[in-house]
Amino acid sequence: MPNRFGKLFSITTWGESHGPAIGVVVDGCPPLLPITAAEIQAELDRRRPGQSDITTPRKEADSVEILSGVYEGRTTGTPISMLVRNTDQRPGAYSEMKQAFRPSHADFTYQTKYGIRDPHGGGRSSARETIGRVAGGTIAKKILALSGGVELRAYITRVHDIAMPADALGDAFPSVEAIEATPVRCPHGPTAEAMIERIKAVRSQGDSVGGVIECRVRNLPVGLGAPVFDRLEADLAKAMLSLPATKGFEVGSGFDGTLLKGSEHNDLFENREGRVRTATNRSGGVQGGISNGEELVFRVAFKPTATILQSQPTVDLEGNPTDLMGKGRHDPCVVPRAVPIVESMAALVLVDHWMRHAAQNRTFNF
Amino acid sequence: MPNRFGKLFSITTWGESHGPAIGVVVDGCPPLLPITAAEIQAELDRRRPGQSDITTPRKEADSVEILSGVYEGRTTGTPISMLVRNTDQRPGAYSEMKQAFRPSHADFTYQTKYGIRDPHGGGRSSARETIGRVAGGTIAKKILALSGGVELRAYITRVHDIAMPADALGDAFPSVEAIEATPVRCPHGPTAEAMIERIKAVRSQGDSVGGVIECRVRNLPVGLGAPVFDRLEADLAKAMLSLPATKGFEVGSGFDGTLLKGSEHNDLFENREGRVRTATNRSGGVQGGISNGEELVFRVAFKPTATILQSQPTVDLEGNPTDLMGKGRHDPCVVPRAVPIVESMAALVLVDHWMRHAAQNRTFNF
Amino acid sequence: MPNRFGKLFSITTWGESHGPAIGVVVDGCPPLLPITAAEIQAELDRRRPGQSDITTPRKEADSVEILSGVYEGRTTGTPISMLVRNTDQRPGAYSEMKQAFRPSHADFTYQTKYGIRDPHGGGRSSARETIGRVAGGTIAKKILALSGGVELRAYITRVHDIAMPADALGDAFPSVEAIEATPVRCPHGPTAEAMIERIKAVRSQGDSVGGVIECRVRNLPVGLGAPVFDRLEADLAKAMLSLPATKGFEVGSGFDGTLLKGSEHNDLFENREGRVRTATNRSGGVQGGISNGEELVFRVAFKPTATILQSQPTVDLEGNPTDLMGKGRHDPCVVPRAVPIVESMAALVLVDHWMRHAAQNRTFNF
Amino acid sequence: MPNRFGKLFSITTWGESHGPAIGVVVDGCPPLLPITAAEIQAELDRRRPGQSDITTPRKEADSVEILSGVYEGRTTGTPISMLVRNTDQRPGAYSEMKQAFRPSHADFTYQTKYGIRDPHGGGRSSARETIGRVAGGTIAKKILALSGGVELRAYITRVHDIAMPADALGDAFPSVEAIEATPVRCPHGPTAEAMIERIKAVRSQGDSVGGVIECRVRNLPVGLGAPVFDRLEADLAKAMLSLPATKGFEVGSGFDGTLLKGSEHNDLFENREGRVRTATNRSGGVQGGISNGEELVFRVAFKPTATILQSQPTVDLEGNPTDLMGKGRHDPCVVPRAVPIVESMAALVLVDHWMRHAAQNRTFNF
Repeated sequence: MPNRFGKLFSITTWGESHGPAIGVVVDGCPPLLPITAAEIQAELDRRRPGQSDITTPRKEADSVEILSGVYEGRTTGTPISMLVRNTDQRPGAYSEMKQAFRPSHADFTYQTKYGIRDPHGGGRSSARETIGRVAGGTIAKKILALSGGVELRAYITRVHDIAMPADALGDAFPSVEAIEATPVRCPHGPTAEAMIERIKAVRSQGDSVGGVIECRVRNLPVGLGAPVFDRLEADLAKAMLSLPATKGFEVGSGFDGTLLKGSEHNDLFENREGRVRTATNRSGGVQGGISNGEELVFRVAFKPTATILQSQPTVDLEGNPTDLMGKGRHDPCVVPRAVPIVESMAALVLVDHWMRHAAQNRTFNF
Repeated sequence: MPNRFGKLFSITTWGESHGPAIGVVVDGCPPLLPITAAEIQAELDRRRPGQSDITTPRKEADSVEILSGVYEGRTTGTPISMLVRNTDQRPGAYSEMKQAFRPSHADFTYQTKYGIRDPHGGGRSSARETIGRVAGGTIAKKILALSGGVELRAYITRVHDIAMPADALGDAFPSVEAIEATPVRCPHGPTAEAMIERIKAVRSQGDSVGGVIECRVRNLPVGLGAPVFDRLEADLAKAMLSLPATKGFEVGSGFDGTLLKGSEHNDLFENREGRVRTATNRSGGVQGGISNGEELVFRVAFKPTATILQSQPTVDLEGNPTDLMGKGRHDPCVVPRAVPIVESMAALVLVDHWMRHAAQNRTFNF
Repeated sequence: MPNRFGKLFSITTWGESHGPAIGVVVDGCPPLLPITAAEIQAELDRRRPGQSDITTPRKEADSVEILSGVYEGRTTGTPISMLVRNTDQRPGAYSEMKQAFRPSHADFTYQTKYGIRDPHGGGRSSARETIGRVAGGTIAKKILALSGGVELRAYITRVHDIAMPADALGDAFPSVEAIEATPVRCPHGPTAEAMIERIKAVRSQGDSVGGVIECRVRNLPVGLGAPVFDRLEADLAKAMLSLPATKGFEVGSGFDGTLLKGSEHNDLFENREGRVRTATNRSGGVQGGISNGEELVFRVAFKPTATILQSQPTVDLEGNPTDLMGKGRHDPCVVPRAVPIVESMAALVLVDHWMRHAAQNRTFNF
Repeated sequence: MPNRFGKLFSITTWGESHGPAIGVVVDGCPPLLPITAAEIQAELDRRRPGQSDITTPRKEADSVEILSGVYEGRTTGTPISMLVRNTDQRPGAYSEMKQAFRPSHADFTYQTKYGIRDPHGGGRSSARETIGRVAGGTIAKKILALSGGVELRAYITRVHDIAMPADALGDAFPSVEAIEATPVRCPHGPTAEAMIERIKAVRSQGDSVGGVIECRVRNLPVGLGAPVFDRLEADLAKAMLSLPATKGFEVGSGFDGTLLKGSEHNDLFENREGRVRTATNRSGGVQGGISNGEELVFRVAFKPTATILQSQPTVDLEGNPTDLMGKGRHDPCVVPRAVPIVESMAALVLVDHWMRHAAQNRTFNF
């Protein structure tokens, strides 16, 4: 259960960063969806380390293999198992982890909870776990794309204190080209350049930074979500806070929305383009927990990477004081690589809710 | 499924604001817990409208009845059904809702999703739905209190732009007395006074405001949560975003944490009071998705109440432009009443995770 | 969780036989279904004791109240809460249960599992718990009836060793009238008479008997079920074995099917009435776990009622030998009253699977 | 969801019989359990075809690889992924399946449900899917063995009409040696010989037979199961009916128990060996849905294999009459190979219920 996400369209991920392989089982996928390993691979490549000079130089081929659930290029409705072999295992780099708890990592909590842990590369808490999420999320994105042209676009709006100007995008839905134009995945060129400089500066200090990702989804139908516990934004929040290094989530107006009065915050309805629309979108595309047909907009906060190449005081497994010096090859800023992961998790939530909505409300006619 | 929350310790809520009753079924409750209707009632009274002159004058007795699952003052392990009769039904006040979609309410999305809705008082989207959450949450809080003295304390840190000073509490765990000293439930007296004035001013304009609630939990054991999807903060985020009017969630350093470098953000381990502790708590009590024994700290953003006593343009059920004037008796600021609800949802998450943790890690000895 | 049944269309039942009330919450019900309390009541009346001279003389009004989820005669898609007050409480009749474990009852296992139990009338193990199942099942039956005219018919084929002749029904789908013609609910008149005589004879001895119920469902679409764990017959088996006093389940040819060779057992396909049909129906309407459009046929074994009006040796709560004499007012044969319960559980499984099937296979078009 | 079994201790199986591999992810496994690939392999070898001259001559190496969740010989609490490569793929043998529906197979229902299917070897309906169940079940059996010495023993009691005498075993718990003494896995030697003769005779006719498996479990604690929907026998019934070719399930006295009166059927309590025991075990080890500490006893009916080496009339994909001649290499009787599968499914249910029981009833002390 703890390694499964989704109710009707679900993924179960497995694998440690330094075991033989890492993977995912997608269960409940609709049949007849055209999908290829190449499509999955393309998204995995976006997530992969070693893409540019601002990410970790660690090379991971991350070559995906589809083991089941696809027949002659189409899904069959049976579980889709996908696997990526781990190739770049350097356990030596992690030997100190056996002896001391890395600050702000999961070492101490894992050890206490389970009484055992695989000390190599963080085990399940490694970002490599997200390979399975992206593999499954790519299938979800394909479903959405083929269903009314639903598109998801995540991008970075802030790295450390370098933020995209509020009006940088205007009303435009950002293009893939603009986002992918730089390795930092901020669609605003000048901001992207400043972000890259900051990341390089921080890396040279052996330090790290975090940032904020915004995600927007357009062409969603009205009706996804539920009034109470399974509000669409609630499941998105869970999805995002389930990602490593995340510290916050907000939808629509978010925390800043609390600075407005009701009369300023309300989205007034109007008849536009022949259907009910809202004049503004402070709701962020959800009202009463249910998508309202406007753009879904949410943001996720990522803390600075915990692993830094500086000596830090900590304690060893017996609780004695010691110092720990980060050694492996790590990202000074994980946020750019998290962009496709955020899209994947959002897509998983949306397809799952679409199926739940259809099950209850579109199965029978009375 | 959409009206159930929790996996092992779960609540299923039911009821519309203007139907005959509203209630909850608590399933999976451990046996032998001492609990009385009076304890439940006390928390419901905290949530109830009409408590003070800054909340809605609507009077709701909200008298709870326990229908099952408790025998001679103790839980039996069978489902606990609790019910509150709705007494103050004034459907007339809502008659206009039948004809027009209230801005930033769930009317439009419900109508489109289900093709039908109970127009009185918002149906399931009414804040009265949270009665069931508080009733169930009170049981969860009792379990926590009897298990190592785990305590939850939620309180308001900001209303509109009036915020508690950052150092108002220092390191102290806020007392119930300080929180309940004013109807606004901010433990810092001067700030509380300013908040109350702001709410009154806004009410006189027929307008509304939102704010931020912080919740802290102490004496939690190490080990609650899971490494991947069921991270403790992920389930807390889902719980909080499942509440009406919430727009954001953050844990520990939250969104502001992204402004720090890794070397500034990391919580260094040390041996204190004979056990492994962190010197700071930017993690907010969770590391790798699992509680680390420090205080759990998170914040929730609530938007301004959508119902305002001003005329607003909108469309009717046929999509024609119209104006809608809020009439019912509504809160200019729901945040104070949300305080016990936030505590309840947090308690539900914590008990559920405690049971999940024990099931996997404390059932067998190898 | 343990008191919930169903994934998308689910019921959560609650209540002890001698508490103030007993009830159910139906979650996930499709909106717009026309349903009335009178329809629910009619099925509860079929389940109720005191219907005839072969059931317990205990009188239970079992008057159902719908508390939520229905607006102007139609379901709204929100949870439907239904409640029946317990009126005929005679705790005195059960006082001995506090002191000794009734043979083949749940007293001992409950006490050991939970460390506490409500000794009046068996608590949750009372057959009164099935009121909630029938209330929920009636809604499911209505959904099925309005969806292609799916009909369920359960009836008794054997009481003790008195069995309906194998060819009593021929190929005909038994009528409600034939089943309800006698209180024993066997559609074959002569057999029904013999069954009634046997039940009366056994009752006069203070003894009890069990029997077998067969259930048939016609007009089901092809495609309900799943290939592996959630085979339609697997979920039906779970549903039936979840009923008190059941000891066995079989589908189609069942245990006797093991006496045939493959060449005798296989259902050959043919083109009949313009669609693919099977010439025989030893599969019982399911192939590979999925409905094949033929009649769904299964049988359930009910043991003789454990409560008998004879003195039986047992042990008390301290494990000391004692004798226990059944006193309450109990059924010498519960099987006739179980007929509507079997139909209800089957209907719940079928609606749930219908929604699961539609979610995966009818939501998207590629 | 449809390919997952279990709530806290769960398996998710994946893979088609003629795809590149087949596998399972075990989620929720307690940490620190000692387990090796060799232990898994030993049980897979029991399930494998080609073990003897009464099973299919198809050779499948079925060599298992553990890809995650085990570190230095012990489980870590993270998901355990296991994979078996498919080596003996002969798609040519199944080419006719593309054109015609095999009688009493899943071809027709799959095609109608999903609109697509992998025609090679039955896809997910292949018995090879059970490899994942046995791999996961072996881990569950190890947990049980290390927890109070809980032992499971399944064996064949009947093949076609050749049944073990009722008193063949007496009160003895059958030994592994007796069961494994012959390839037919019936612990009564003379019956085993007759069964083997029958299977050979049927095979020479190109026909097939089914049979009945009994499973007994000893040393279970009191308290596993739940009073209502999640009765232990209900989840066992679901587990067993989820296996290919099963048509029936019964616990304890089963269908024959309906031939007894209550006074004959009741299991009287007595104080034996210092604890509460029952004098007889018609309950089959469960009372009120909860294990009572006696031997758990249940039986499962398996129909004759659908694939026979005879020509059978059927229809093709367009519904036109045709004939189909079974060709592949199939078992004339699958029941002996189902023995370890039945044990595996039972073990999965028991560990899952053990964890559920502990979560609710052994986590907190009030």
